[in-house]
Amino acid sequence: MVKISKEDLSLHNLKKLIKKEFNETDKLIKNQINSDVNRIPKLSKHIIDLGGKRLRPMLTISCAKMLKIRNKNHIKLAAAVELLHTATLLHDDVVDESIYRRGEKTSHTLWDNKSSILVGDFLLGKAFQLMVKTNSIECLNILSKAAAIIAEGEVLQLVETNNVSIKEINYIKIIESKTAALFSSACEVGGIVSGANKSQRKNLFNFGKNLGTAFQLKDDALDYDGSSNKMGKNNGDDFYDGKVTLPIILAMKNASKKEKDFLKKTFNKKVRNKTDLEIAKKIIRDKDTINQTLKLANRYGEKAKYIMRDFENNPIRNALIDLVDFSLIRNH
Amino acid sequence: MVKISKEDLSLHNLKKLIKKEFNETDKLIKNQINSDVNRIPKLSKHIIDLGGKRLRPMLTISCAKMLKIRNKNHIKLAAAVELLHTATLLHDDVVDESIYRRGEKTSHTLWDNKSSILVGDFLLGKAFQLMVKTNSIECLNILSKAAAIIAEGEVLQLVETNNVSIKEINYIKIIESKTAALFSSACEVGGIVSGANKSQRKNLFNFGKNLGTAFQLKDDALDYDGSSNKMGKNNGDDFYDGKVTLPIILAMKNASKKEKDFLKKTFNKKVRNKTDLEIAKKIIRDKDTINQTLKLANRYGEKAKYIMRDFENNPIRNALIDLVDFSLIRNH
Repeated sequence: MVKISKEDLSLHNLKKLIKKEFNETDKLIKNQINSDVNRIPKLSKHIIDLGGKRLRPMLTISCAKMLKIRNKNHIKLAAAVELLHTATLLHDDVVDESIYRRGEKTSHTLWDNKSSILVGDFLLGKAFQLMVKTNSIECLNILSKAAAIIAEGEVLQLVETNNVSIKEINYIKIIESKTAALFSSACEVGGIVSGANKSQRKNLFNFGKNLGTAFQLKDDALDYDGSSNKMGKNNGDDFYDGKVTLPIILAMKNASKKEKDFLKKTFNKKVRNKTDLEIAKKIIRDKDTINQTLKLANRYGEKAKYIMRDFENNPIRNALIDLVDFSLIRNH
Repeated sequence: MVKISKEDLSLHNLKKLIKKEFNETDKLIKNQINSDVNRIPKLSKHIIDLGGKRLRPMLTISCAKMLKIRNKNHIKLAAAVELLHTATLLHDDVVDESIYRRGEKTSHTLWDNKSSILVGDFLLGKAFQLMVKTNSIECLNILSKAAAIIAEGEVLQLVETNNVSIKEINYIKIIESKTAALFSSACEVGGIVSGANKSQRKNLFNFGKNLGTAFQLKDDALDYDGSSNKMGKNNGDDFYDGKVTLPIILAMKNASKKEKDFLKKTFNKKVRNKTDLEIAKKIIRDKDTINQTLKLANRYGEKAKYIMRDFENNPIRNALIDLVDFSLIRNH
């Protein structure tokens, strides 16, 4: 008997229910990266193969399938959402100067910053071309807005880099823009092409928004708590990048003057080292802010699940509720 | 009496004919760059104010006005085209590591690469939002395709950097993608929102394509021939960037073994200096390739003018024909 973890189980059902559509989406994505300019498919394939969990296209497919599938538009939108996400990953890796993503060298490390910027732009164009093929101005409206909001969130995060005194509310705003905006749009457009009514659209949007926020907060916690192997990226990445995330923001609230000074000074340094990380981790442990971050993630997760219960009881709806659990209990 | 140069005169008429729409477009562009994240409007304003000639939105407005204006969609599209162009400029300046644009410091020099990348993404999202507001799937199709083609051309140019043996036909392909694709789309979408028929659309597309190619070839010639002041950027930029343009490609054809070796070696160096440029310029002068480049630019320009004569004789049509002349005689 194969042992299956609770973590895997929570994704297992959803994956089984949308397997066919998921594979179609994957194929469509791979079709889009074709180009006579060899570097484009090569670099795109590299980042797409690293791939990750493909949560966003899974959301589009599932939200469409939970209602009434009419044609293949949900596949096109799922692929568009993933291409949009991939484009932002390419640009983020350049901005963050990340050497590794999921344990593999990043594209700009294997090629160069220039290629990553331009191939990102190419994928963005391709994402919009796919959206156009659905003939849905509504979906184009939602996803073009999301594209601008994501970039806005990234700039805000950049401006706030090293600022340990950032207010929690402003930090949540960053998360809502840079992560939750695409989750909510992915869900909403899935609903739209399946004829969701106004209140269903609103629910899908809010489900995605809360799930996305929970997902990002869990990521923030994992970065100080996960093991490097399972995370597939380096533990402490946010810290080394000078990104102030919730575990730090909450720790600052109850820190002693000495600890506050340490965090302020450390996040304002050009480079942070392993010893700095260990001291920061000790402060975080003392203030118990990993648990506080996870509790907040759970609150967002609970909201997402509550909203989803507004939909008729069916296997996909239930698998989407499980997906919220997966986002919260995952170790990578 | 104010003396007006032939160069200024050729743009003068068009500017006068579309002054109102041009100002509306400018206002709309400036509205789009608003954001609570201060760095976004600041950085955007910097690059937009450098502005340049705004030829692309002028094309959209003119092509729409030459036919039959129905609503304000041509203004939205003109602004979208300029925002798309601005986004590519921000990314290009990072890719080319340019310090100056039109005599002013580039955005990534004043802020940083990261901000330029992300604000470029923001402007791209805003461009698509404006297109969506026209409700025209056709226009969205054309411009999303153009966005991907531009990026494809930029990657091809990057791959071919330093390659003095690039074939003329491949170089023209780069130009058609990175420059002419937006010119042709700018013209076509202008026509579409004014109800252009199939053959008019084709003519507008081809007018833009030939004009864009002529425009870029003239740019290539100016970079080896223009004075630094008038050009607003450094003379020799392409050379220092290692970009092999037509004056070099044509010179390679008739160069002696010694000259070929020099050009090959020089373009393969990491950095090229002023002496290198002077020697390259001497080879170019000897082979008369500035004139050959300008002759080819003229051929594309003549094609553009010939196509435009297919439209009914009216002031805007004639001003668009003058615009071709402007593109060819300009000194900046």
